[in-house]
Amino acid sequence: MTPALPKPTSTLPDTRIYERRESTVRSYARAMPRQFARAEGVWMHDNRGGRYLDFLSGCSTLNYGHNHPVLKQALLDYIAADGIAHGLDLHTDAKADFLETLEALILKPRGLDYRAMFTGPTGTNAVEAAIKLARKVTGRELVIAFTNGFHGMTLGALACTGNASKRAGAGVPLSHVAHEPYDGYHGPDVDTAELLERRLADPSSGLDAPAAILVEIVQGEGGLNAASPEWLRRIAEIARRHGALLIVDDIQAGCGRTGDFFSFEGMGFTPDIVTLAKSLSGMGLPFALTLFRPELDQWSPGEHNGTFRGNNHAFVTATAALRHFWSDGAFRKDIARRGALLERRLAAIAAEQDLSTRGRGMMRGIDVGSGEVAATVTAACFARGLIIETSGAHDEIVKVLAPLVIDDAVLSAGLDILEESIRVALAASYGVAAE
Amino acid sequence: MTPALPKPTSTLPDTRIYERRESTVRSYARAMPRQFARAEGVWMHDNRGGRYLDFLSGCSTLNYGHNHPVLKQALLDYIAADGIAHGLDLHTDAKADFLETLEALILKPRGLDYRAMFTGPTGTNAVEAAIKLARKVTGRELVIAFTNGFHGMTLGALACTGNASKRAGAGVPLSHVAHEPYDGYHGPDVDTAELLERRLADPSSGLDAPAAILVEIVQGEGGLNAASPEWLRRIAEIARRHGALLIVDDIQAGCGRTGDFFSFEGMGFTPDIVTLAKSLSGMGLPFALTLFRPELDQWSPGEHNGTFRGNNHAFVTATAALRHFWSDGAFRKDIARRGALLERRLAAIAAEQDLSTRGRGMMRGIDVGSGEVAATVTAACFARGLIIETSGAHDEIVKVLAPLVIDDAVLSAGLDILEESIRVALAASYGVAAE
Amino acid sequence: MTPALPKPTSTLPDTRIYERRESTVRSYARAMPRQFARAEGVWMHDNRGGRYLDFLSGCSTLNYGHNHPVLKQALLDYIAADGIAHGLDLHTDAKADFLETLEALILKPRGLDYRAMFTGPTGTNAVEAAIKLARKVTGRELVIAFTNGFHGMTLGALACTGNASKRAGAGVPLSHVAHEPYDGYHGPDVDTAELLERRLADPSSGLDAPAAILVEIVQGEGGLNAASPEWLRRIAEIARRHGALLIVDDIQAGCGRTGDFFSFEGMGFTPDIVTLAKSLSGMGLPFALTLFRPELDQWSPGEHNGTFRGNNHAFVTATAALRHFWSDGAFRKDIARRGALLERRLAAIAAEQDLSTRGRGMMRGIDVGSGEVAATVTAACFARGLIIETSGAHDEIVKVLAPLVIDDAVLSAGLDILEESIRVALAASYGVAAE
Amino acid sequence: MTPALPKPTSTLPDTRIYERRESTVRSYARAMPRQFARAEGVWMHDNRGGRYLDFLSGCSTLNYGHNHPVLKQALLDYIAADGIAHGLDLHTDAKADFLETLEALILKPRGLDYRAMFTGPTGTNAVEAAIKLARKVTGRELVIAFTNGFHGMTLGALACTGNASKRAGAGVPLSHVAHEPYDGYHGPDVDTAELLERRLADPSSGLDAPAAILVEIVQGEGGLNAASPEWLRRIAEIARRHGALLIVDDIQAGCGRTGDFFSFEGMGFTPDIVTLAKSLSGMGLPFALTLFRPELDQWSPGEHNGTFRGNNHAFVTATAALRHFWSDGAFRKDIARRGALLERRLAAIAAEQDLSTRGRGMMRGIDVGSGEVAATVTAACFARGLIIETSGAHDEIVKVLAPLVIDDAVLSAGLDILEESIRVALAASYGVAAE
Repeated sequence: MTPALPKPTSTLPDTRIYERRESTVRSYARAMPRQFARAEGVWMHDNRGGRYLDFLSGCSTLNYGHNHPVLKQALLDYIAADGIAHGLDLHTDAKADFLETLEALILKPRGLDYRAMFTGPTGTNAVEAAIKLARKVTGRELVIAFTNGFHGMTLGALACTGNASKRAGAGVPLSHVAHEPYDGYHGPDVDTAELLERRLADPSSGLDAPAAILVEIVQGEGGLNAASPEWLRRIAEIARRHGALLIVDDIQAGCGRTGDFFSFEGMGFTPDIVTLAKSLSGMGLPFALTLFRPELDQWSPGEHNGTFRGNNHAFVTATAALRHFWSDGAFRKDIARRGALLERRLAAIAAEQDLSTRGRGMMRGIDVGSGEVAATVTAACFARGLIIETSGAHDEIVKVLAPLVIDDAVLSAGLDILEESIRVALAASYGVAAE
Repeated sequence: MTPALPKPTSTLPDTRIYERRESTVRSYARAMPRQFARAEGVWMHDNRGGRYLDFLSGCSTLNYGHNHPVLKQALLDYIAADGIAHGLDLHTDAKADFLETLEALILKPRGLDYRAMFTGPTGTNAVEAAIKLARKVTGRELVIAFTNGFHGMTLGALACTGNASKRAGAGVPLSHVAHEPYDGYHGPDVDTAELLERRLADPSSGLDAPAAILVEIVQGEGGLNAASPEWLRRIAEIARRHGALLIVDDIQAGCGRTGDFFSFEGMGFTPDIVTLAKSLSGMGLPFALTLFRPELDQWSPGEHNGTFRGNNHAFVTATAALRHFWSDGAFRKDIARRGALLERRLAAIAAEQDLSTRGRGMMRGIDVGSGEVAATVTAACFARGLIIETSGAHDEIVKVLAPLVIDDAVLSAGLDILEESIRVALAASYGVAAE
Repeated sequence: MTPALPKPTSTLPDTRIYERRESTVRSYARAMPRQFARAEGVWMHDNRGGRYLDFLSGCSTLNYGHNHPVLKQALLDYIAADGIAHGLDLHTDAKADFLETLEALILKPRGLDYRAMFTGPTGTNAVEAAIKLARKVTGRELVIAFTNGFHGMTLGALACTGNASKRAGAGVPLSHVAHEPYDGYHGPDVDTAELLERRLADPSSGLDAPAAILVEIVQGEGGLNAASPEWLRRIAEIARRHGALLIVDDIQAGCGRTGDFFSFEGMGFTPDIVTLAKSLSGMGLPFALTLFRPELDQWSPGEHNGTFRGNNHAFVTATAALRHFWSDGAFRKDIARRGALLERRLAAIAAEQDLSTRGRGMMRGIDVGSGEVAATVTAACFARGLIIETSGAHDEIVKVLAPLVIDDAVLSAGLDILEESIRVALAASYGVAAE
Repeated sequence: MTPALPKPTSTLPDTRIYERRESTVRSYARAMPRQFARAEGVWMHDNRGGRYLDFLSGCSTLNYGHNHPVLKQALLDYIAADGIAHGLDLHTDAKADFLETLEALILKPRGLDYRAMFTGPTGTNAVEAAIKLARKVTGRELVIAFTNGFHGMTLGALACTGNASKRAGAGVPLSHVAHEPYDGYHGPDVDTAELLERRLADPSSGLDAPAAILVEIVQGEGGLNAASPEWLRRIAEIARRHGALLIVDDIQAGCGRTGDFFSFEGMGFTPDIVTLAKSLSGMGLPFALTLFRPELDQWSPGEHNGTFRGNNHAFVTATAALRHFWSDGAFRKDIARRGALLERRLAAIAAEQDLSTRGRGMMRGIDVGSGEVAATVTAACFARGLIIETSGAHDEIVKVLAPLVIDDAVLSAGLDILEESIRVALAASYGVAAE
């Protein structure tokens, strides 16, 4: 059967209310100037009947697609029954369900013994809690983060973020964090783990003893750089040897995006602390979680809190998602197959155009050489009904973050659009008329 | 008609899953050891059939009560129709509705010309955005906050928070903020606005030129201290004279809690920036908003962002709440009447026990002298089915944060429980057998 | 006998070498545009034969006058004999002599049991060492300093300094220090020690637990504000109660300036740490010292160091000065008598002109209302051969820092010049021809 | 003629006064437990008649030896004539002489157009002034320093210092500085200038735009690492391209130590700012200087100050030293010859013992493998009358910092002692009896 195809609307919506009342800080709506009304699965619909294929997935927040029927029904039932919507951090049925499901379907099968801390329901809050805890437990202040890392916008997390324009927004100097080169940062001949080890072992290097090493397994915003398992094991070992906690920020790469629930699975090391958010609720609801080894659970009651910690609606949908997708290995197989398809198709496009690819699993992209070209590519895609965005230090990576549940044929169809758009954009950038 | 009365459960729930898997940072569940299943209006129900009257309201997050039928129906309809749940900061029908309603029902009638910035959906994120913006616009770094102020847990907001145990959790020194004495902090004879003016006018006081003055109109966590309009006008004038922006943190005191939508209404000054969260969504969903004068809207696109900024479910319930409660003056009248009732009853209890009261509107409390006594009071209340909490530097204030929609008779019934609990607790603390 | 009188030169010197090669940061030479060649006692001589009476004394660095013959001879003998000039912190005869003399003549008679740390030979280095030690010993970070305090120009000491223009030179935010109001800062009716106690006792005041309270007994640069003994005892008690170390910065007020060797003598409290510099060497040579209770001497060898720590030439002159001036009570009596004379004369000038006076001992000044008037006064003095400078947040205090060894008649003669200059300057500022 | 030889004293001095009154922070006296009385040229004499050959030179503060007769006579004459000892930053004959001599003999012949700022007379103050100025001029906050760099002990300079134990003494986190790998830090195959360029060119590297790059040409405390001219030119170019000022800290390596007056001469780049101290006065008197391009001289009068800025005694001896040693090329030739002798001898020792050498000019050392062995070597030297010390991250480098004026034969005699001491110490460390 032929899959449904995108059917974009060509007319611009009325945006006067936004211009009048919404801050200029808004960003995505500029490149995708439509007003969206509803969405299901991989499709978003604008308010004039247009249909768009979503290869952005809320930056990996919608791994299970929009309004997945199982999750949606669970939430409707919960609300209809007057389930607790907001209860601070009181015990609720929804929370107990979530914790038990997390334990049974995620932690136990993977041999992970973590405690769960429900922070304010955004990724940046989860990162703030993680680094606070690491500093508290170790009595040290420095956090080592990496070049091109992205960890959030509040002051503690922003200090860990590499992006200069985001950092400039702080308005105060960002302290207590050192950014060290990520795997491959200085090319294939320089082992950046060795550089780090050298500096930490040297009492005169100027690098203070770190509370934590904070790392993404695949750098989502930083350009889909995927660290090698060897490098990551080395980093884990360096952290242990130097008394630092290893924090894996799995906010973008976790929840199945790279193939399994956590992005670090099967790599031969266990993080001390893990942060999750984005796709954790499964339906795009605000939800964040910081996991850590029980010995690290040295918080006093309420020492870190927040009004919306423990979003009960999100507990409900997250529990439904864990049950539906992670009870057996079927979903992992789907991701593996789709990831392979994606890898193959991107490699072919790259080969044809003499470009390079990046990433792992269903978190891949193609380096088109500059942010200008990438913006042309994504605009060309959007004109064809494909929602897709860029990443990287210069926004030069066109990234594919399709819902993990996408039908293989639809994935192919979307990649056709991408292929064509790249061809057109590159041709234009070479000053050559496209065929 | 006799109002429904609380019917607490006396048995403790099974908490093994929490002990096994939830961080010790959990706090409210310790004093209120029940597992809650559902809630509507002013009532919370545990999973064994117990019923509790909620005088905590999620720390003012549930001003319209739990699962208000109008808001609930709007949300059910939206979800059932596959309304956008998550759309980053893309334009959506839900967002447009919210902005138009905010403009029509809140901003225009009050003569306020603000732009809205949807930050990550927690109060602390809204505060971080506010102080970032103030620092960016003024090119200065220092924020002046006040003794006993509470503004959040992420590093930038935590630096503005006065509470020592929360601050200690930071693990790094908290910088770029000075805490100055709030109204009345040094007793009735010391004009703390004058102290501040003196220091800012003195080029040798050691107080750097501030980017912002960040103030709560009533300090929720800090002990329900209500600043006088005169003092606040003076602070507004000091901010203006010294080139600082005035930020009102209305996260706890806003959305009707003190009598009108904003807590600063009718006081004769207009803040430059206002933060809102807690009751903004109306149904307890994570949602936060930073409002500011259009001239201050100097953000670059995406300079401050966040995955869950613009929670569409919250747009839907917030819009429904604005329409239902703020289209005319009826709700304000209800709050005024209930606030007067609350004031009268607390004054009577205080008079009988030689205690003092605090607060304004429906945000009032009673100072029982120590955190130990206050804990005894709230435990006695809970045993009688009343959920109530404390506030203040020593947790010595028993605070009443009942839903604003509470029926007058139910409010009275709850205050009866409070009165009796205070009597019992104080008698016990004096070593005298109660009754 | 008629005392010698000033005999200023009216012509300006050739300053081309300064304009060509010296940084614009130079300051005193602007108001006193002469090139000085030699000096002895209270007199400075320019390179054209002019003679000036020195009421500045290197900002209290020359309490014993210029090139005091006893100190000078000791230094000449030492150099001629190839005494060690520089020896890092090796033991030298000169250091042993100094330590023994300090112990015998200063510490023992006053019942003070201090260890001496020779820091880099500037006041700011001594302050840096003091606050480092306080932070190390207490494990805390915050230092409480006071409005109008001045403690030095390196980053740690500058953070403790109140002056806005000096602070602005830092180029980075100055952290880990809070400036609290000094004695009398908010007028006679506000007890600023009580304000401080209140904030430190309040766990929600936002003021972190301090490592140290750093105070000047008389604020030299801040306007000759003299704290009362009661206030200082209260501050000492507050420090003790809250686990903070009391640091007295005696760099300007010590070495006899306020009447005895230390400015805090006889006040009923003992500082934990004392910093000395300026007049310590007695002859204006760079020399600084941080004294502290033996229990606080928790430094590791070399943990704080510096190439010029322990300036041996300064050991020699300092030892000679201690022996010559502090072996008995004669010098104290001289200072008391001259201080009384100074107080009386300044009071009379102030009474005549409706001005107010400041200070204590031989560290006194007169508030002429504005920096502009004060500059006119000091310029008028200089034109009459009197070197004198200003102090205070607005440079509005004309300060008399004459050498302590000044002959009473010369002191009177200098004060005559000051009196006349004030009269002339005030008349001019009122637009009235001087009598 | 046979040169004079060391004649050490074997008995320990009476150290009770130090134990009673001097802080435990003292360091050199522990390894060299004698009390020194006088010194001339390369010789130090203890108070019991012992004679020691000085291969430490006050850590390069005594490049012209102790009490050089020409400098000494100039100082004696100045003091005897009541020359100004202390004059704040007033113009004095001594200052004018120094500035004119600096201009004529140092700046002009080298084509350098610098302004001179007299900071507080210690190296750390000169560094603080340099980084303050760089931050002020650029409006940026970050300073890039290097691994193993040493720049001083006050808070601003200490943040630039790499040594962990020194850093730990700060008691507060050291901010606004990033330490990047120095030349050769990651071995011969990694071009660390390229690593730095890469990070500065990458807007997502987390390295903020720097105000300055602060570098030593040879790292004195860090282990006598000598950067190559190519690397330094590259760093100078990187600074220029990225809008940062290049600061050369020439406090230890300057004043002839590496062969010419400045250590960067002849390398093909000109620093924006240079700091000098240590040997600048020539006789070990406290003196420091910050030089910078005239366009950078954006200080306001007094914006950075200090009581002892412009030490007049030091002006006198520094001027005498410049005239005596730097009027023609003779001294440079002497240094070159002695440096070659030193290089040859150290190379031979290293070859024999399978060790490696470090350094340049008369600033060289030998890596004996560990701090323990190095301590044994220096103790063995001291027992033979040779004062010598260690350097490096692990104190593993035995460094030769003999006075530059040392007679060739005496230098050889001292190196004989070193050679023998290394042989003995290494034999002992191998558990083998020395021959």
